Amino acid sequence: MNGKRRQRHLRAALGHPRPRAPRIRPGAPPGTLAPTESARPGRVSVMSFTRSRLEEHAAVSIDEALDHVGAGAVSWIDIDGVGDARIFARLGERLGLHPLALEDVLTVVHRPKVERYEKHLFIVMRMVRLAPADAGLAPGPPEVRDEQVSLFLGPDWLVTVQEGTADAFDGVREAIRHARGRTREAGPDHLAYLVLDAVVDAYFPVLDALAERMQELEEAAIAAPTEETLVGLQRLRHDLLALRRAVWPMREEVTVLQREDTPLVTAETRVFLRDVYDHAIQALELLESLRETSVAVMEVYLSMQNQRLNGVMKVLTVISTVFIPLTFIASIYGMNFAYMPELRHPAAYPAVLGFMGLVAAGMVLYFKRRGWW
Amino acid sequence: MNGKRRQRHLRAALGHPRPRAPRIRPGAPPGTLAPTESARPGRVSVMSFTRSRLEEHAAVSIDEALDHVGAGAVSWIDIDGVGDARIFARLGERLGLHPLALEDVLTVVHRPKVERYEKHLFIVMRMVRLAPADAGLAPGPPEVRDEQVSLFLGPDWLVTVQEGTADAFDGVREAIRHARGRTREAGPDHLAYLVLDAVVDAYFPVLDALAERMQELEEAAIAAPTEETLVGLQRLRHDLLALRRAVWPMREEVTVLQREDTPLVTAETRVFLRDVYDHAIQALELLESLRETSVAVMEVYLSMQNQRLNGVMKVLTVISTVFIPLTFIASIYGMNFAYMPELRHPAAYPAVLGFMGLVAAGMVLYFKRRGWW
Amino acid sequence: MNGKRRQRHLRAALGHPRPRAPRIRPGAPPGTLAPTESARPGRVSVMSFTRSRLEEHAAVSIDEALDHVGAGAVSWIDIDGVGDARIFARLGERLGLHPLALEDVLTVVHRPKVERYEKHLFIVMRMVRLAPADAGLAPGPPEVRDEQVSLFLGPDWLVTVQEGTADAFDGVREAIRHARGRTREAGPDHLAYLVLDAVVDAYFPVLDALAERMQELEEAAIAAPTEETLVGLQRLRHDLLALRRAVWPMREEVTVLQREDTPLVTAETRVFLRDVYDHAIQALELLESLRETSVAVMEVYLSMQNQRLNGVMKVLTVISTVFIPLTFIASIYGMNFAYMPELRHPAAYPAVLGFMGLVAAGMVLYFKRRGWW
Amino acid sequence: MNGKRRQRHLRAALGHPRPRAPRIRPGAPPGTLAPTESARPGRVSVMSFTRSRLEEHAAVSIDEALDHVGAGAVSWIDIDGVGDARIFARLGERLGLHPLALEDVLTVVHRPKVERYEKHLFIVMRMVRLAPADAGLAPGPPEVRDEQVSLFLGPDWLVTVQEGTADAFDGVREAIRHARGRTREAGPDHLAYLVLDAVVDAYFPVLDALAERMQELEEAAIAAPTEETLVGLQRLRHDLLALRRAVWPMREEVTVLQREDTPLVTAETRVFLRDVYDHAIQALELLESLRETSVAVMEVYLSMQNQRLNGVMKVLTVISTVFIPLTFIASIYGMNFAYMPELRHPAAYPAVLGFMGLVAAGMVLYFKRRGWW
Amino acid sequence: MNGKRRQRHLRAALGHPRPRAPRIRPGAPPGTLAPTESARPGRVSVMSFTRSRLEEHAAVSIDEALDHVGAGAVSWIDIDGVGDARIFARLGERLGLHPLALEDVLTVVHRPKVERYEKHLFIVMRMVRLAPADAGLAPGPPEVRDEQVSLFLGPDWLVTVQEGTADAFDGVREAIRHARGRTREAGPDHLAYLVLDAVVDAYFPVLDALAERMQELEEAAIAAPTEETLVGLQRLRHDLLALRRAVWPMREEVTVLQREDTPLVTAETRVFLRDVYDHAIQALELLESLRETSVAVMEVYLSMQNQRLNGVMKVLTVISTVFIPLTFIASIYGMNFAYMPELRHPAAYPAVLGFMGLVAAGMVLYFKRRGWW
Repeated sequence: MNGKRRQRHLRAALGHPRPRAPRIRPGAPPGTLAPTESARPGRVSVMSFTRSRLEEHAAVSIDEALDHVGAGAVSWIDIDGVGDARIFARLGERLGLHPLALEDVLTVVHRPKVERYEKHLFIVMRMVRLAPADAGLAPGPPEVRDEQVSLFLGPDWLVTVQEGTADAFDGVREAIRHARGRTREAGPDHLAYLVLDAVVDAYFPVLDALAERMQELEEAAIAAPTEETLVGLQRLRHDLLALRRAVWPMREEVTVLQREDTPLVTAETRVFLRDVYDHAIQALELLESLRETSVAVMEVYLSMQNQRLNGVMKVLTVISTVFIPLTFIASIYGMNFAYMPELRHPAAYPAVLGFMGLVAAGMVLYFKRRGWW
Repeated sequence: MNGKRRQRHLRAALGHPRPRAPRIRPGAPPGTLAPTESARPGRVSVMSFTRSRLEEHAAVSIDEALDHVGAGAVSWIDIDGVGDARIFARLGERLGLHPLALEDVLTVVHRPKVERYEKHLFIVMRMVRLAPADAGLAPGPPEVRDEQVSLFLGPDWLVTVQEGTADAFDGVREAIRHARGRTREAGPDHLAYLVLDAVVDAYFPVLDALAERMQELEEAAIAAPTEETLVGLQRLRHDLLALRRAVWPMREEVTVLQREDTPLVTAETRVFLRDVYDHAIQALELLESLRETSVAVMEVYLSMQNQRLNGVMKVLTVISTVFIPLTFIASIYGMNFAYMPELRHPAAYPAVLGFMGLVAAGMVLYFKRRGWW
Repeated sequence: MNGKRRQRHLRAALGHPRPRAPRIRPGAPPGTLAPTESARPGRVSVMSFTRSRLEEHAAVSIDEALDHVGAGAVSWIDIDGVGDARIFARLGERLGLHPLALEDVLTVVHRPKVERYEKHLFIVMRMVRLAPADAGLAPGPPEVRDEQVSLFLGPDWLVTVQEGTADAFDGVREAIRHARGRTREAGPDHLAYLVLDAVVDAYFPVLDALAERMQELEEAAIAAPTEETLVGLQRLRHDLLALRRAVWPMREEVTVLQREDTPLVTAETRVFLRDVYDHAIQALELLESLRETSVAVMEVYLSMQNQRLNGVMKVLTVISTVFIPLTFIASIYGMNFAYMPELRHPAAYPAVLGFMGLVAAGMVLYFKRRGWW
Repeated sequence: MNGKRRQRHLRAALGHPRPRAPRIRPGAPPGTLAPTESARPGRVSVMSFTRSRLEEHAAVSIDEALDHVGAGAVSWIDIDGVGDARIFARLGERLGLHPLALEDVLTVVHRPKVERYEKHLFIVMRMVRLAPADAGLAPGPPEVRDEQVSLFLGPDWLVTVQEGTADAFDGVREAIRHARGRTREAGPDHLAYLVLDAVVDAYFPVLDALAERMQELEEAAIAAPTEETLVGLQRLRHDLLALRRAVWPMREEVTVLQREDTPLVTAETRVFLRDVYDHAIQALELLESLRETSVAVMEVYLSMQNQRLNGVMKVLTVISTVFIPLTFIASIYGMNFAYMPELRHPAAYPAVLGFMGLVAAGMVLYFKRRGWW
Repeated sequence: MNGKRRQRHLRAALGHPRPRAPRIRPGAPPGTLAPTESARPGRVSVMSFTRSRLEEHAAVSIDEALDHVGAGAVSWIDIDGVGDARIFARLGERLGLHPLALEDVLTVVHRPKVERYEKHLFIVMRMVRLAPADAGLAPGPPEVRDEQVSLFLGPDWLVTVQEGTADAFDGVREAIRHARGRTREAGPDHLAYLVLDAVVDAYFPVLDALAERMQELEEAAIAAPTEETLVGLQRLRHDLLALRRAVWPMREEVTVLQREDTPLVTAETRVFLRDVYDHAIQALELLESLRETSVAVMEVYLSMQNQRLNGVMKVLTVISTVFIPLTFIASIYGMNFAYMPELRHPAAYPAVLGFMGLVAAGMVLYFKRRGWW
């Protein structure tokens, strides 16, 4: 592989540890709604339900969706993609969403947080999922991608905004459709809890995949440490760091939700949030274990690689060490002294050859006995 | 050993650092009772006692067990195995257990915690024990296994659920049978304390075994560092990490129990809980010491192994270094110059041999004196 | 490169990790206003605005600027350069600024902090920017420079003092000129918020540049580790440490501003400050990730460099190892024994040469198969 | 040294890092008084004093000792050895000591703590002292031994229990006998303070000895790193870890004593306890410094040892490198070409020898100049 | 350098990391005033001033000094040297100083702290300064020395006690003499603030010198790593640890002074103490940066040294590797086969020599191209 290609290959294999800045227009006044260039335009869907009734519409306009809000039902507006600023301007106007919160929704690299505004709660989370690695360059393991999920929780409505390409809330929708558990009886705060729960539960398959990779790397580090192991380990570390940045704030986030003195979250939902908190902590502890393990595996890798290399050197050196004395013996009988009586003896040559054999065998035996070969 | 077998061997020898996810049905609404496939069906036993009377029944149906609850006695229902969802549905119905708590019981990889519900306290702990290693693959040290123990504490009943295959509460049962200490006089909270105490006390034999392994590895690291030492050290680290995940939350757990403003725990039992807290802290400190020691032992291992390898190289190099000048001398007298007067002298050959001997002896002496050989 | 030049080159390439002391006159009583020698004399500009009116004057005298304060408008005095102590004496007199605060302004290496005085708030921040590296010596990446920005916030005025050579508040001025958002309606506390926001947002391009450098160093560490990589890594670490000293206190700073019970900051502005807090935290988390990555990259560098060097040694040793047995064979037939029958055979010479070729080929094959060459 | 003996030697030289479990009867109900097998039977002594009067009796029965309690004097019962359970049963009965506290006294591996019971305070501390190393096996430095000291503090009595073989409170007894300071005027809480003070002050000679060992190991690591240095360093680390487990809880212990709202400790004694707190903190900080130093010394050891080994290899390689070209020259003139005119020249042989000498001298000079030899 | 001298040299070059114990008379009752043997006898000076009047006397007896206390003026008694216990006994008597505080003054290795007694505040600090290294042994950098400074603050007097040989408060005295700032108007608490400020400001030149040393060591580590670099680094680490033990407690110390609810410190002085707090924090942050840098520099040192050594080995090995094949070729034509036709060809010898030259040139070129030489 030549230099340039190797560089490109490495860049892909290592993953993308580069942080993205949260604000892209330095100097612009806060509260301006300008979507990221590359963002998909929003796809709006709406669910509106009471205990007995359920209306569901996909791919509607934002105004159609907003028409369902109110009227005694719980309304859930889900927006898939943050590329269309008008949708959010309209939302802000109708539901009284704070401009700073809306700006955070469009800035898709935000840190998870809960913020209480006058008329609504605003929650930012990071959804984590595994995506197949870019085919052309790095044939490595699936990449960890994190995408922003934003929630606005009002008195009888919930707005969710997903940056991601894949819809993550199918399970929640199914639960509403089949009226599982308390989903249809409780208010929008219970719905928000279900969404939070889905986000947190999505950490575990990712953690599991990372743990699987860690185990493979650990075995490779002991059994056959190569440069690929090192690159894989570095990439895993990047993934763990990225994941931690996503998961870590979830802990305080859920705590804030449980403690915040707001009428928007009922006491009953707070009991359920305790469960989410619990899972977030568990995800964090697994993450920390993995991070500690990664340090240990790095040590093992370094040790084993050193050992392998030294092992090779040892064998090579043993070979030289066996032949050097033999060559010395031979060179003695290559000397041109006039009086070397043994040179004339007919048995001398085979005797010397035999002696050489003995010396070689002795050395080999000695080296084997000491475990050097 | 070939590649595949070696991989399998390693996987076994390293232990199972892979975390298990707490929820197995992503998307399913919380509160659904679905036991893990591989779980054993529950075996129910019940003890019901007052100061003067004691009834004990093993292997009864859950309804028979529930019949003992109430009627002025303290009842302890112990369920061994979490494979039968109906048992827990029935329990929840009769004793008013919260669905989220019941779900946590069935999800057998939960983080230790205490949760207060309206009618009962719910406690999850992780019981730790040593199990003989899987015979076929890794002939290594016994494995550390942790199993979930759940407690429901009500006004006059205690329900314990054990995931594990081995019954861990025989000591507690004996104490009740012989009415040792305050066991028969106090309420179910004292019984819960005894169970907690048994769980925490079970950490010490495991810690002791790990410390024993650590000491052996440390001695091996200094005396004879091999690849097995490294694998053993990695496995020990996995075990320590797993143990910490089990023990760490116990600390806050007991603190919560002591502080929680609930009528279910009497002031007297709180004094006893202080003792359990104390033991948990002590277990944690031992654990931390072991973790620090493991880092130091790794360093020692790396250092000693490096030293051994370099030592071998040194000896080999010394051998070569002794023979190379000798060979040079011999090669001088192997030159074919017409006028090399010493070649004709009869004593030249033995003289050169003697000189070679002197050179060799000189070098060996010099190397020995500098401690290089 | 000779020794002296190399030393100078290194000093430049490593960056300037040396801390500067905050007070330069040991023994002098606190509260004395003595500017640093090398500081630029101050350039004063003033903006005074209400919702409907805007006056702006650049390069005025401090007395002219102070004439705009009061009279129902919000006044912003910006002083560029801290070399002229009279400006600050005059400011202190007219606006009642505390001598200790003024002294801190002139001491341009202060730690970020917020201090509440009777009549005003005093805020110190560190503005961070990238400056092209010193051309003559180190052709390396742009340097991270941090400069002090001080704020005095009064009831209807804001004084900002910049140490730096480049004006950092053009964006804020533009926002005032075009009356963007709430800039012209709100009081001086909103203006202070905009300045804080500009300072915090300026961290992200710098972090981005450092992350870019980190990625390049990581790739270099794996693909081609050289001494330059090491020096670059050390320099990056110096930059990260310096940046952390600047960013870390911002967190508590904004918290203090949000919590401080002062009439100078309105409730509305506190909501906006939450946004600044958020960005500061995010900057810190990125910084910590970079620091952890720098440790990992160092490990990778050390490992790869070791591997490279050992790889070279291995190849060299393999070459010697192939030739040493061959030389031994040759030296056998260089022996001068009288009875070495094979010497006389016409085919012996080519046979021996062939045998040597076979031995060499066998060794090379063996080494190749084991991956040693 | 052969394998077995070496193992045993190592085990002794490394110290005893193995933790001891706090409870030895798993399953037994808490509150049972069963002394450790190996414990010495208790030796009871009693001091009873007022400002003017002093009674002192050594080696009395526990009942005789208890007869002195009360009657307007301050009584101090000291029990040396925890092997006799009846003593403690009797004490508990007469002075109302809590069974859990008594159990902790007999379990001689307890973590330091302060517990408030209804009628008394219970304090566990770990006394630290240096004991000469086991003569037969490891001729190393004195061992750090920690022994349990328990205190019961009542309204007019103090009971101290020492596990240790050496009496540690002679200084306190002397102070009482000579009525030094406030010892005879103040109550039993002042006496308890003196005991605490004696325990904490005993840490400093041990820390000093460890610091001395650290300094010796650091010098050895730089001047002459051997395997003994490594073993010594490991042992020092074990000692530091053990010491920290003993000292660390002392800090909170004294804090609790100062803050605890109990009539048993007077305000005046609390002032004195601040002094003990201070010393405990100082001991901890020294300990932490030593721990950090131990990490640095390990690094130095690894570096120096590597350097030494590489240095040896370098010299050996230099020797070979000088002779290999010389041998090549000689082997050229050992070739049997028919037409090698220089072979016939009478001056050729000395000329070649001279040339060889020049080459050798040149190489040696070159290597010396570059600092390789 | 021989062994003994080298050991002594090392001990000096490494600095004195050994901690000194705070109490030197184990067993003695607290509150006994016994000065350290080596301490200088105290030199007493006194300043007594009001806004308009100033009296100053140096080298007076303690009783003369005490005569100035009271009478409406602020009195500052400075005692230089702690060797004379009578001075302190007298002070304690007249000003009501607590025996424990006085004992701490004489014990010159105390941890910085603030203690509030009934009639006065007691403050211990550690003054840090650079002293030229001991000439005879280690020609190294100046040593960091820390000396104890104790303060007693009463209603109208301040007593300062300096252990050190050099007077550190000249600046403060000058400020009083010239009535700079508020020094003559404010009370003894402002005076105490000036003393604290002088102590904290004295950290910065020391930190600056250490940073300078760190930079030199870093450059040495990259450009020319030798054993001296390692020893220098170790010494710097000892200095940093010692400095941290001195600076770290200052932070809480100033916080306590600011918060402590005592009439001895006025609200105005508390504002000034905030400034001292700030500087203490800044000193700590610089210290932490230096500590992190020291770890990085150690890594760089290890890496560079390894690289240098390996580089030497590489060159040596390259030399051998070039000559070994040449020697093989020569040894071929040294074989004594009867039928080696090329031996007879007149051009054979120069041809072989030429071939050898080609082989050597080819190898050198190849090695150069791969950067191995």
